[in-house]
Amino acid sequence: MTTVITYGTFDLFHVGHLRMLERAAALGDRLLVGVSTDKFNLGKNKECIHPYDERAAIVSALKPVDQVFPEENWEQKVDDVVKYNADVFVIGDDWVGKFDFLEKYCQVRYLTRTPEISTTKRKKLISSGRVKLSDWLASTAE
Amino acid sequence: MTTVITYGTFDLFHVGHLRMLERAAALGDRLLVGVSTDKFNLGKNKECIHPYDERAAIVSALKPVDQVFPEENWEQKVDDVVKYNADVFVIGDDWVGKFDFLEKYCQVRYLTRTPEISTTKRKKLISSGRVKLSDWLASTAE
Repeated sequence: MTTVITYGTFDLFHVGHLRMLERAAALGDRLLVGVSTDKFNLGKNKECIHPYDERAAIVSALKPVDQVFPEENWEQKVDDVVKYNADVFVIGDDWVGKFDFLEKYCQVRYLTRTPEISTTKRKKLISSGRVKLSDWLASTAE
Repeated sequence: MTTVITYGTFDLFHVGHLRMLERAAALGDRLLVGVSTDKFNLGKNKECIHPYDERAAIVSALKPVDQVFPEENWEQKVDDVVKYNADVFVIGDDWVGKFDFLEKYCQVRYLTRTPEISTTKRKKLISSGRVKLSDWLASTAE
């Protein structure tokens, strides 16, 4: 069995996240995902709209994902790879070269991010005020 | 086998959407989800940030969901219930009473929406500018 491991924040979940997870899952039989905690993100000066529990719940609920665990610091990756017997470490190619040190423990794959053609249209929708984030936030009272 | 059917837009997917789908799925053995098309939403003067294909892809990828189909108009629900042999129609209780006419064809359940405690915090994050939607949109270039 080939175990794949990847990491991310997955705030405001969108299809780009999903496609990356599907491509990661396709590299093996089991996909484990480290979801960064709110505390870890704050340490990177990155504040999420959705808290860890909710981001992790969504990633856990996806068909390509077998298990989610918290990513709490930069240093845990070697331990994770060993603990979970990961065969392949996957990350976006904006990190190319940064995780080569894991090659001592598993295969390291940097996946190409593909440009998303409708980003411009989405920005226009927001800037034109035709979609208001405040309406959406109010609608999250589910 | 009990078939459950529900409908929604599922733009900017969040844990409230997931919990509603999980509760709908728990009412039967198979969950079918009508995702509203962009054209249908425009007719309601509602423009989405994410296009239909991407919203449908995310809902389809969820473990509690068995099948997704397009919701193109207000009138199709009777046909859908018949075509898919749905036993239970589920919708949020903001629609209470509005779909009682379906009781001729299946059970109709209005699920209570639960208030989400962190909405205030999320609004503050946006209004304080500590989370910028534009940054997120740029990051969707995956």
